[in-house]
Amino acid sequence: MIYFDSAATSWPKPREVWEAMEHCIKFAGANPGRSGHQMAVKAGRLVDEARELLASLFKIRNPDRIVFTLNATEALNLALKGLLKEGDHVVTSSMEHNSVTRPLHVLGTKGVEVTKVSCLADGSIRVKDLEAALRPNTAAVVITHASNVTGTLMPIAEIGQLTKKRGVRLIVDAAQTAGVFDLDVSFMGIHLLAFPGHKGLYGPTGTGGLYIAEGLELTPLKEGGTGSKSEIPDQPDLMPERYESGTINSVGLAGLAAGLKFIRREGMDQIRSHEMNLTRRFLEGAAEIKGLTVYGPKELYARAPVVSFSLEGKPAGPVATMLDQQYRIACRAGLHCAPDAHKTLGTFEQKLVRFSFSYFNDEREVDTAIRSLQEIAAIPSEKFNKKEDKSCGC
Amino acid sequence: MIYFDSAATSWPKPREVWEAMEHCIKFAGANPGRSGHQMAVKAGRLVDEARELLASLFKIRNPDRIVFTLNATEALNLALKGLLKEGDHVVTSSMEHNSVTRPLHVLGTKGVEVTKVSCLADGSIRVKDLEAALRPNTAAVVITHASNVTGTLMPIAEIGQLTKKRGVRLIVDAAQTAGVFDLDVSFMGIHLLAFPGHKGLYGPTGTGGLYIAEGLELTPLKEGGTGSKSEIPDQPDLMPERYESGTINSVGLAGLAAGLKFIRREGMDQIRSHEMNLTRRFLEGAAEIKGLTVYGPKELYARAPVVSFSLEGKPAGPVATMLDQQYRIACRAGLHCAPDAHKTLGTFEQKLVRFSFSYFNDEREVDTAIRSLQEIAAIPSEKFNKKEDKSCGC
Repeated sequence: MIYFDSAATSWPKPREVWEAMEHCIKFAGANPGRSGHQMAVKAGRLVDEARELLASLFKIRNPDRIVFTLNATEALNLALKGLLKEGDHVVTSSMEHNSVTRPLHVLGTKGVEVTKVSCLADGSIRVKDLEAALRPNTAAVVITHASNVTGTLMPIAEIGQLTKKRGVRLIVDAAQTAGVFDLDVSFMGIHLLAFPGHKGLYGPTGTGGLYIAEGLELTPLKEGGTGSKSEIPDQPDLMPERYESGTINSVGLAGLAAGLKFIRREGMDQIRSHEMNLTRRFLEGAAEIKGLTVYGPKELYARAPVVSFSLEGKPAGPVATMLDQQYRIACRAGLHCAPDAHKTLGTFEQKLVRFSFSYFNDEREVDTAIRSLQEIAAIPSEKFNKKEDKSCGC
Repeated sequence: MIYFDSAATSWPKPREVWEAMEHCIKFAGANPGRSGHQMAVKAGRLVDEARELLASLFKIRNPDRIVFTLNATEALNLALKGLLKEGDHVVTSSMEHNSVTRPLHVLGTKGVEVTKVSCLADGSIRVKDLEAALRPNTAAVVITHASNVTGTLMPIAEIGQLTKKRGVRLIVDAAQTAGVFDLDVSFMGIHLLAFPGHKGLYGPTGTGGLYIAEGLELTPLKEGGTGSKSEIPDQPDLMPERYESGTINSVGLAGLAAGLKFIRREGMDQIRSHEMNLTRRFLEGAAEIKGLTVYGPKELYARAPVVSFSLEGKPAGPVATMLDQQYRIACRAGLHCAPDAHKTLGTFEQKLVRFSFSYFNDEREVDTAIRSLQEIAAIPSEKFNKKEDKSCGC
């Protein structure tokens, strides 16, 4: 099978990831941060290690400012609901995943004003448009680092300069970039950075987190079961416990730590370079296929390794189903949980097929995919419209 | 090492648990519910299997009424914050874990009235006291199935009859009983059942869930990233997606399914009988140790396999540290995240040492622990007060 769905979750994982998980279950299977016995301490160290590796990756001075969540969606919910209060204004882009737009939609019903800045047809944003949207009561800008539909990279450092100048918090969704692109929270002026553990960081599902800048206090989403300050009725104000209620996914985080060590060993530049090489190769091949339209920036440097496209006269769902069932290519068709992005691209009705590449893909796989798409493109359109659309909506 | 800390998380796990996790990572490592390709479908089936096994265990007709969370604390937060509104009254007991009391404390600041019914000195509750606490605006009773400090079993079925008669919702925290004691949501009249995956169900950390009775709608804690109905701005009203935002812990849930199959194969009655036999053996041995006081019910039938005790003149923390470091017995000292429970027992200042038994413990281990405690009991108290208290507060 050819797996081009790493924007949903990366696969395969490096061998050391499940080895680390097995080791954790077998030899450090206690509850970290609960009891004081040796195996609990050992479990705690594994979790600490993941935190330290992440801090090093994102240039975060104090690892305890990273809190672990079930996934990036939870991290974004915590960031948005924890920060924004009635009367606040928040600015976002029209290319966001619904893990940003849906919490904002709820906050909108609670007195938070939301402005969505329209992006250009390639998914990019003009910083001046974003600046024009700022108001005296703007509390935050929330934006993705790269679109999960088109891979369009957003100019985070430039936005960070703007938000710093205007005294506005910057919240970044790094779902598609963590582990692949440089993220320096201090240089980029990021106050809240949400990331999944199971995509570019090569950890297992069930892992993700949020960096919370020093001095910033959020309202927790959950309380109880923190393993500290049992005597008080309130959630403790200690970091990271304040935002980590209940038993942490120590086994998953042991895997995440192994994923982070894999990235360190291989080198993030090397990983990115490989993935972008595959993206370039795919874009070049795709340009030769009649009726195939790629969305997003033309320039490779403006992209993450995520490419969405359409085939003229052929609905995205059946194309993806054919790729899966006849060519054994796993990809994702639909709206990719980002209806606003598809409206921006003009593909809300039509939907798109998405390929996303990881370090474990190779050029041969890209070439096979190009040949497969050539064959599919050559099939008369009528044959497609009869097919049931099995694409997933999100 | 002798592991008597299964009330925090069970250890070891059955071999098939990590085998299932490794299999999931290697062969079903895609994101379930996101894409339509074969590996995503395979991943979805593993998650469905966990849901079906849980439904069968708890006698839930429709598995889709079970939603997966990071842990039981998240499930309790979702139950309480999702159900209770300003002006509601809620009744709870004085033996709850802070995964109940802390969310209630926050709700208390938002116009929800909370009544804590005082339990007796052995941790048990009188249903008539609970009944007396009900008011016309009582929306729910929230109670643990068994205390995580004393193991005291609460009369859930009887409480369920009362709440049914009075039209009040019943929320049950099954952190210490799921996988060990019978739980029949229909017979017991349970509307919301919160459970961890990583204790008596033998799954890995990072798993837990909430059963939500048919017809009951909660306000979600999180929105976005559900894999369905991408076209709408709201969180979809489909079950279970409505409450499962972001990528689910498919790898952990594959392990949980294996844990559930282990329970089914061994037989829950057999598991409980083994654990209660160990509890009885420990209680009998402990009764012979001078200066050792066991808290909680005298009768075995009124208990789960969790026992807390004190040694006269010897603080709990140093006793647990000595058990760990000199006798290689892992247990937990402190307040066990349940300050109200310790106030009920009169041990809030003093704290307690907790032993909790699992199916993987044996009689030899209990006998070793009894001998170790006899030795510790024989040490002059003065030696203890000098020791640093390394016990964990929670």
